[in-house]
Amino acid sequence: MGLPVGYSINLSNMILALGSVALDTVKTPFAHMKDALGGSGTYFSISASCFTKVALVGVVGTDFPQKYINQLKSKGIDLKGLQIRNGKTFRWGGEYSFDFNNPKTLFTELNVFSSFDPDIPNEFKDYPYLFLGNIDPILQLSVLEKMNKPRLIACDTIRYWIEKSPKELRKVIKKVDIFFLNDSEAREFTGESNLKKAGESILLLGPRFVVIKKGEHGVLLFGKNSMFAAPAFLLENIFDPTGAGDSFAGGFMGYVAQKRTLSDNTMRSAIICGTIMASYCVEGLGVRTLFSLKPKDISKRYNEFKRFTKY
Amino acid sequence: MGLPVGYSINLSNMILALGSVALDTVKTPFAHMKDALGGSGTYFSISASCFTKVALVGVVGTDFPQKYINQLKSKGIDLKGLQIRNGKTFRWGGEYSFDFNNPKTLFTELNVFSSFDPDIPNEFKDYPYLFLGNIDPILQLSVLEKMNKPRLIACDTIRYWIEKSPKELRKVIKKVDIFFLNDSEAREFTGESNLKKAGESILLLGPRFVVIKKGEHGVLLFGKNSMFAAPAFLLENIFDPTGAGDSFAGGFMGYVAQKRTLSDNTMRSAIICGTIMASYCVEGLGVRTLFSLKPKDISKRYNEFKRFTKY
Repeated sequence: MGLPVGYSINLSNMILALGSVALDTVKTPFAHMKDALGGSGTYFSISASCFTKVALVGVVGTDFPQKYINQLKSKGIDLKGLQIRNGKTFRWGGEYSFDFNNPKTLFTELNVFSSFDPDIPNEFKDYPYLFLGNIDPILQLSVLEKMNKPRLIACDTIRYWIEKSPKELRKVIKKVDIFFLNDSEAREFTGESNLKKAGESILLLGPRFVVIKKGEHGVLLFGKNSMFAAPAFLLENIFDPTGAGDSFAGGFMGYVAQKRTLSDNTMRSAIICGTIMASYCVEGLGVRTLFSLKPKDISKRYNEFKRFTKY
Repeated sequence: MGLPVGYSINLSNMILALGSVALDTVKTPFAHMKDALGGSGTYFSISASCFTKVALVGVVGTDFPQKYINQLKSKGIDLKGLQIRNGKTFRWGGEYSFDFNNPKTLFTELNVFSSFDPDIPNEFKDYPYLFLGNIDPILQLSVLEKMNKPRLIACDTIRYWIEKSPKELRKVIKKVDIFFLNDSEAREFTGESNLKKAGESILLLGPRFVVIKKGEHGVLLFGKNSMFAAPAFLLENIFDPTGAGDSFAGGFMGYVAQKRTLSDNTMRSAIICGTIMASYCVEGLGVRTLFSLKPKDISKRYNEFKRFTKY
């Protein structure tokens, strides 16, 4: 049930994040980078770490640069759950054209990720906030089962899993509180072109909230008793859209964990925090802008967004 | 200059609207109608008449059904400026596919509209609010010149005039306070794919406000010192998108005229009123839903929209 406004639950505020850690090769009309720090778990964790403490569960190969480990640690991200396996790190290559819509995937090399078996250090099993990044639903389920009843579970997915493992994905969705996906994925998953119908039909599968991300067109939040829409932050320059959705989820979860409440109001403000983090993410190449963010940058843009949307 | 919040000017509240009055043939996946009441001036006037008094300047042929005249009059629309000329009424035919995006134009028969020379009855020349519908910029200019300094002038356009008469269109824009266009038109007109840059570059041409309509993705308002974004009202069922943009402009101008203020706050609420009127418009075939609207329907949906967007 969508909790009524003002209804608060006090929780502690640590997030456990499961996701990919990758070496990204990205081409845009304006820039090019090779083997840069990337992956859904990475973007999520850096973004969420601006709000609260995050532990990241994932896997990299022995080729993963120590400087990236140091960078993640410098954001206070706990890497005791990041396995280092013999072999090469997961690599992804993508190219954006001038419209900065869906990138053309140049290559995907799973490498050590293909045999990833998430191991959750005992100290993380009582973490109250769990984020299941957009990886194989079977791995998402296995992590979920290893945890000691987190109080809030969110998960994200991508088209690949909607098409390959819809049954397993439904099992995950049934057990989570918040489900993130984008507009075209929502349409494909439900077979419903209308986003209101799509969002409401996903709610029937079990989650308390469904968040449909529309990229430059903003976000929709569906709860059992409420809906919420927010436009995107209007930017003059987009440099690299990679990681926007993961940064959104990180800002959202980070804010919710920081507030330690699950009210409808908190969810709405969390949508705005996610929007702000995604807007910063796409203004820089890779994780660059996210990394350098200060709390005052986030509150400055939050206030700009308020002025930009109030009436 | 975007007037500061709370700065008010008292004006009387009559609107003069220039626009097409047409007989529309519309096919959608769910319905079909032939020679129905349509045209940009028609949709605008019906929508605005829910907020204030409107006089419509346009032309129809001798075949224009008396029942449509009676319908427009029943909304209190003053038709002394509607010329009835020998010949046939302007006809437009369009077909929508399931995605309800841009319709395929089946035919356009200008008929009496091809020699339209707008004549403004003297009693209308002192009207304080002027709306120049999306017709030939030369006609928009001629009407503008016949008026006795209206205090607020808004104009709309379509791709056809952006491509055919960009110079004349710029002359009109220079003289208006508010310029409406949709996102693809804004991109084409400015050669700028980024909507923030597009909106700001149109502001430099002279208008105080630029309104960029994004259809199902909402609206952007650009002022000299402020920007505002609103999502669209989320509908479950779209029946016929014809007239959505004109209904939007009608709700916007109707609200501004009713309030008789030109503050930034009024413009923002006017965007929401436009959004509400467009949402009702597309829920019914042709002008059907707009016609039957009661003030309580508008305030009900305005309040729903508030709940849908506040945070």
